[in-house]
Amino acid sequence: MEEHIESVGKAFVDHYYNLFDTNRPSLASLYHPSSMLTFEGQKLQGTDDIMRKLCELPFDQCLHSITTIDYQPSCFAGAILVFVSGNLQLACQEHPLKFSQMFHLIPIQGTFYVQNDIFRLNYG
Amino acid sequence: MEEHIESVGKAFVDHYYNLFDTNRPSLASLYHPSSMLTFEGQKLQGTDDIMRKLCELPFDQCLHSITTIDYQPSCFAGAILVFVSGNLQLACQEHPLKFSQMFHLIPIQGTFYVQNDIFRLNYG
Repeated sequence: MEEHIESVGKAFVDHYYNLFDTNRPSLASLYHPSSMLTFEGQKLQGTDDIMRKLCELPFDQCLHSITTIDYQPSCFAGAILVFVSGNLQLACQEHPLKFSQMFHLIPIQGTFYVQNDIFRLNYG
Repeated sequence: MEEHIESVGKAFVDHYYNLFDTNRPSLASLYHPSSMLTFEGQKLQGTDDIMRKLCELPFDQCLHSITTIDYQPSCFAGAILVFVSGNLQLACQEHPLKFSQMFHLIPIQGTFYVQNDIFRLNYG
């Protein structure tokens, strides 16, 4: 069970940030109409609003590198909580930005979608 | 609905860190036998193991100050996801430590308990 969660969570994290860095609009495939994103305190709901926000971020080229990933089973059958910390390197900035992000992944038809997504830069 | 979540989440966060800083053993009242804590990558399950870990942390006096709190409803009826960033000042260290922490709060008999808890220091 624990190995399954780590395997699913790790695959999701790799997939998510790879899409973000190489083909951001395709992240739409990971959200649903019920999905929620809180991005630096701004609340968005539904794939359309979430994708508009992500695609309108004021940078084009970026590269996420992951520092830590923690996984836990959620109480909802088969759902998984994923907690990520890492660095976000923007092409337009010299130094990477540190961030933390959590995802609540819900199983559906053999795959998972993001029901909850909370992103914060770690200012310091 | 959203106001309710923020109100419950804010009250929980205030209560949690106040207990942590003033009477750490009483945090036991917020966990259940099914609760999970991942603390800096170490996995603990159940109130007893979680409390042993929290009470054996290598510092006595500490003070959490909160920088940001984000809340979202979970898909589990009435449950709430809370994402916190802040500083942890230890009496034995000059500079505060930055941390991020998430909680999955589950309603039970008019109150909430912590089902999922993930804590990470933000090194940088």
